Amino acid sequence: MISDLSAEIIIIGKEILNGFRRDCNVESIARWLLKNGFSLDKVQIIGDIDKDIAEALKLTKARLIFVTGGIGTTRDDRTRFVIADAFKRKLRLSKESVVCLSEKLRKRNVFFTNRYRELCKFPESALRLDNPRGLAEAFILSVKSRAFIVLPGVPFEIESILALPSFNENIRHFFSTKKCEGHILGLVGLRESEIEDICLDIPEFQRGKVSLLPSPGLVYLILQNKKLLPLLKKRFGNYIFTYSGENLEQVVIELLKRQNKTCSVAESCTGGMLGEVLTSVSGASQVFNGGLIVYQNEIKIKELGVSSNTLKNFGAVSKITAKEMACCVRKKMKSDWGIAITGIAGPSGGSKEKPVGTVFIAVSGNKQNTVIKNIFSGDRNIVRISAVRFALNLLRRMILETVK
Amino acid sequence: MISDLSAEIIIIGKEILNGFRRDCNVESIARWLLKNGFSLDKVQIIGDIDKDIAEALKLTKARLIFVTGGIGTTRDDRTRFVIADAFKRKLRLSKESVVCLSEKLRKRNVFFTNRYRELCKFPESALRLDNPRGLAEAFILSVKSRAFIVLPGVPFEIESILALPSFNENIRHFFSTKKCEGHILGLVGLRESEIEDICLDIPEFQRGKVSLLPSPGLVYLILQNKKLLPLLKKRFGNYIFTYSGENLEQVVIELLKRQNKTCSVAESCTGGMLGEVLTSVSGASQVFNGGLIVYQNEIKIKELGVSSNTLKNFGAVSKITAKEMACCVRKKMKSDWGIAITGIAGPSGGSKEKPVGTVFIAVSGNKQNTVIKNIFSGDRNIVRISAVRFALNLLRRMILETVK
Repeated sequence: MISDLSAEIIIIGKEILNGFRRDCNVESIARWLLKNGFSLDKVQIIGDIDKDIAEALKLTKARLIFVTGGIGTTRDDRTRFVIADAFKRKLRLSKESVVCLSEKLRKRNVFFTNRYRELCKFPESALRLDNPRGLAEAFILSVKSRAFIVLPGVPFEIESILALPSFNENIRHFFSTKKCEGHILGLVGLRESEIEDICLDIPEFQRGKVSLLPSPGLVYLILQNKKLLPLLKKRFGNYIFTYSGENLEQVVIELLKRQNKTCSVAESCTGGMLGEVLTSVSGASQVFNGGLIVYQNEIKIKELGVSSNTLKNFGAVSKITAKEMACCVRKKMKSDWGIAITGIAGPSGGSKEKPVGTVFIAVSGNKQNTVIKNIFSGDRNIVRISAVRFALNLLRRMILETVK
Repeated sequence: MISDLSAEIIIIGKEILNGFRRDCNVESIARWLLKNGFSLDKVQIIGDIDKDIAEALKLTKARLIFVTGGIGTTRDDRTRFVIADAFKRKLRLSKESVVCLSEKLRKRNVFFTNRYRELCKFPESALRLDNPRGLAEAFILSVKSRAFIVLPGVPFEIESILALPSFNENIRHFFSTKKCEGHILGLVGLRESEIEDICLDIPEFQRGKVSLLPSPGLVYLILQNKKLLPLLKKRFGNYIFTYSGENLEQVVIELLKRQNKTCSVAESCTGGMLGEVLTSVSGASQVFNGGLIVYQNEIKIKELGVSSNTLKNFGAVSKITAKEMACCVRKKMKSDWGIAITGIAGPSGGSKEKPVGTVFIAVSGNKQNTVIKNIFSGDRNIVRISAVRFALNLLRRMILETVK
């Protein structure tokens, strides 16, 4: 029963403990674990202190333990030494690793000095794993029935290692599990409780075989196999924006690319966040023309072309202003789609008629315009994220309708 | 010796373990701890399982333990019950808490049902703490020489509790520490290693009495008292952007407000992130007029007014284009300052002359223009954040020069 497999993450690094670098590694490792049927029971973050690292390694009760950080070239990188010592394995120089690292350094025009040599030492019987995007190679060390996976601390290096076929095969081999067929479904436009109500009669939901993971405006469902896929597809239809764990902005950019369409944005209360999120996807330039951040009414009129009468009669936070913003930016930037957001993100600026969290979101296409009013709850940041995701989804739904 | 005080954070919540909600609580609590002279040794994230919570509570070796999450009204909120049980304290209904909560619910037009009654129960001898921004009150429970601070899981609620004078007084009283006079200095424009070199002769830096916390483009220094302030002020001057832990965007907005000046932005590779960061500060509308996201060259020419010859001769990622972008957006949006960013965020799009990470940042004022070329390292996201922070600092430095 692979679903009984317990996992733990041990994150090593003073800079995370000190709180100024939010840890991004939990997210990618947790997704990998859920998809592969492991249950994550605990995450620990500890400093670069030998004794603390050794204690964490020895006390873990999990079968699969991810250890991240502390395998680089600086003095406070202690993980390699502590793990070898804790499990009484000698560190051995790997010639293959030396060859790989020399090649990487050569490409970067960096000399192979002694401190790099340390990166090529691994505990006896450990299995090296390539690090496609960094210098410090990862490794797997099995100790009795446990597997320790020791990774660098950099999020994008970790992601590249988790995606390696050789890594995934080794783990499957070690735990005698089948090829992973887990799925991550993303749903947008429904609340966690609404999804639960719709799935009350599905036994897997009761038995905890499906994990629901809410985030502002979105819910992800993690399935451990594809049995439920047809049923969920039938029940949720277009509320599902991904079957493979992509984020909403990736899906929207991909959809625009496939249809060879472009978009542009006009943002008031989100101040550029919609543009920022869209352009966080590499290759967005193919479909994203640009946008206007129109914080002041004067800019809305002069730069975007919203009518001054509209603003005077209905206010900046109104259905008609949102619609005009979307139409104007579409035409101005010669795009197929224009998206606009105007609202009150708070904490101040609310009124009885338009409380904090009131946001109008409009999408304008060649043939149709849609405007929707929302009242989001949460602080300034959450209201803004919710508005951006709502806008992305509105665009996605409208594009899908044109395909019908 | 307050500097010997050890602290730990226990975060309770399945949704964080499952990795779809990055934990933001570590950051604010860690800052509070450092400022008050505590050392954070460990952070644990565990699920909503009684046994796991009890084990974490009992095994901790720290003197001050923050426990966040699991004190709300839903079924999986178990913290209150587990902590009472673990330390053999009965839960007692607090009449004062009932009065406070009734009043909060009345304002929200919500009935005081039985499930809310649970929020007013606290372990015997626990000290209630008001939750200025939420419903579930926090509490402090002392067990022998340890203090457990039990908080809700919502970041902005936690921040409001950490700022309460009554909370800070109670902790000082419990640990017999003096009124906190810690300072958080923010430095921008210098690397961690450069700062270390400049401070090599200062004994407090060697003895670990000063913590250095790097983040892309910034370093924070945490001091436990104000003794070093004059010395650091002399050595670092305008590299210091805050003495009180504010973030860079707050400082820039405040500076513009004080001088009654406005700004606007023109963004290429950051796609709206500079606008988003500036408008994340509540009240930014007083000084931020708006901006243009100019992803395509055509938009740079037609909407912003960059000369097509400039783009043809020097390319979009060039000193002259950046300068024109900043000037154009300043004039177009009738602002006192225009800020522009153009570059190659990667992972693709780089060349030998302009590798990934090359970013030109320009600030244009009434009297002077400045353009600076940078080559940032890191992934797409880090390059973009570094560019935004560099731009904010360039504006800050130029404003400060006008005051001289």
